[in-house]
Amino acid sequence: MSGHQLLGPGPEFDRIRAILAALGERGAPSGDDVALLAIGGHLLAFSTDLSVEGVHFRTEWLSHEEIGWRAAAAALSDLAAEGATPHGVLVALGVPKSASDQESAAVMRGAGLATEEVGAKILGGDLSRAPVWTVAVTVIGETGRPVARAGGRPGDILYVTGELGGAKAALDAWLGGRTPDDEARQRFAHPVPRIAAGRVLARSATAMLDLSDGLAADIEHLAAASHCGAELQLDGLPVGPGVAAEAARVGKTPEGYAAEGGEDYELLVALPPDASRPLLDVKLTPVGRLTDSGLVRFTHHALPVTLSGFQHFR
Amino acid sequence: MSGHQLLGPGPEFDRIRAILAALGERGAPSGDDVALLAIGGHLLAFSTDLSVEGVHFRTEWLSHEEIGWRAAAAALSDLAAEGATPHGVLVALGVPKSASDQESAAVMRGAGLATEEVGAKILGGDLSRAPVWTVAVTVIGETGRPVARAGGRPGDILYVTGELGGAKAALDAWLGGRTPDDEARQRFAHPVPRIAAGRVLARSATAMLDLSDGLAADIEHLAAASHCGAELQLDGLPVGPGVAAEAARVGKTPEGYAAEGGEDYELLVALPPDASRPLLDVKLTPVGRLTDSGLVRFTHHALPVTLSGFQHFR
Repeated sequence: MSGHQLLGPGPEFDRIRAILAALGERGAPSGDDVALLAIGGHLLAFSTDLSVEGVHFRTEWLSHEEIGWRAAAAALSDLAAEGATPHGVLVALGVPKSASDQESAAVMRGAGLATEEVGAKILGGDLSRAPVWTVAVTVIGETGRPVARAGGRPGDILYVTGELGGAKAALDAWLGGRTPDDEARQRFAHPVPRIAAGRVLARSATAMLDLSDGLAADIEHLAAASHCGAELQLDGLPVGPGVAAEAARVGKTPEGYAAEGGEDYELLVALPPDASRPLLDVKLTPVGRLTDSGLVRFTHHALPVTLSGFQHFR
Repeated sequence: MSGHQLLGPGPEFDRIRAILAALGERGAPSGDDVALLAIGGHLLAFSTDLSVEGVHFRTEWLSHEEIGWRAAAAALSDLAAEGATPHGVLVALGVPKSASDQESAAVMRGAGLATEEVGAKILGGDLSRAPVWTVAVTVIGETGRPVARAGGRPGDILYVTGELGGAKAALDAWLGGRTPDDEARQRFAHPVPRIAAGRVLARSATAMLDLSDGLAADIEHLAAASHCGAELQLDGLPVGPGVAAEAARVGKTPEGYAAEGGEDYELLVALPPDASRPLLDVKLTPVGRLTDSGLVRFTHHALPVTLSGFQHFR
């Protein structure tokens, strides 16, 4: 359920709660983005992710191949956050009437490339007419030691992979009628699911999730699920490309802007204070720690900062 | 990929072929509606199915709970055709802006009820804004002896479960501005995936699929995949409720109309001529046999009949 708030605040919170309540005893949703199923001694991990034109992207912004890549990468990112290894991907594609066969093929090719990148295969799919491009991606993986968002403990150190805010910088540039910074655009169009990093981090992590709603919103989810508070210092936050310029436009610090920016698909992980720092294929930056206060607090230069969560553009 | 023609003729055939070609070596689509994955001695079966307002249903026709039921049942039907037992279901729901929380909850409740009906659970899902109601259902099952559509041999006897044409009768009534027959409406709104029958049939079946495009179109798919022809007699075809009246309106026989009607989600199965007739919880009717001619032929009262496949209503 990346892109949506299951346990923290947010505009879709009430709606989702009502829906989970309606599922009642029939459903077995974990509260995590990933569903687990034990089959013959193997623990399978599943996630499904909907990517809709006009909600998650516009065709003026992305090539059709990028639409497919981004949809598949967003779903695969849920597996990364569980420390899971992807086995396969299913793609249900809704195609607008105006689309050409080449465009449909390009979307599927993009999804296939993102899938191949993490060593998995497109297993199957469905195709339908739809009013706008609609990509429903289901990912199937396997995990040895699943990491929920609920296992964090006071004192755990919080880390993020990669750099934050690049996707939001591209989005804000587009929405403002500007051409995004090339690298920022790449962060939005071509996110890399942190599968390898997630597997390594899962060995010692107490809690982990992928940053789809932005650090400011997602730390609320992790802390709430773990019944912890959190203190985060923006000072050393790894800031993505193109962020400084977009942040300046709205009078924010690059770090505050990056912490509010969603859809970077980096990992937020809590490690016990005595865990040795894992060696990853991507930068890992400490950003704070879990506390027993029950509150999430951000500081910058030792002063408190109030941040808001990431909103989809409509 | 129920509702679509992978190996037979049909309007979406060229588009799907182009897309499969684009997947190239990255993809491993089976040509069947169901993807198989071997995990630790277990053979898992997956299918994903997109159900879109204005394409597969209209909100004037179905309650929100029925929208969810029908979407889940259509996906579960793919598992039935594989002889698989469902384990779980993922639902990615696209919700229009005008929808209430109660309506979203009702769609999920309907999907949950269809899932519970076959002894499985909703494992998780996603929620997003979308221009129209969009329900992407992924089903996860397990099969001991998977049945492809490609295993049929000349001489095999063809059977269908249940009765055909009811869903089309309801659809045509709605499209003509009439109120559908109650039972026909039920066939459209509340299809029952033939999970138990599929499991029993899978023990002896050489080929099987679920009738989403209608018998006339789907026998083409089964025959083409099996490199066979087929001869079918419409005389004894089990005709669904409300069919006779709708057939008469368009000057067709009830049997011809029923053979052209899609989305009944009954099973079409090929059994070896020496197989004993299985005992099912649903009617099983012989409708013809596979041949070595390479052509699919329908007869009625011993005269040849030309049928056309089922088209979605837009």
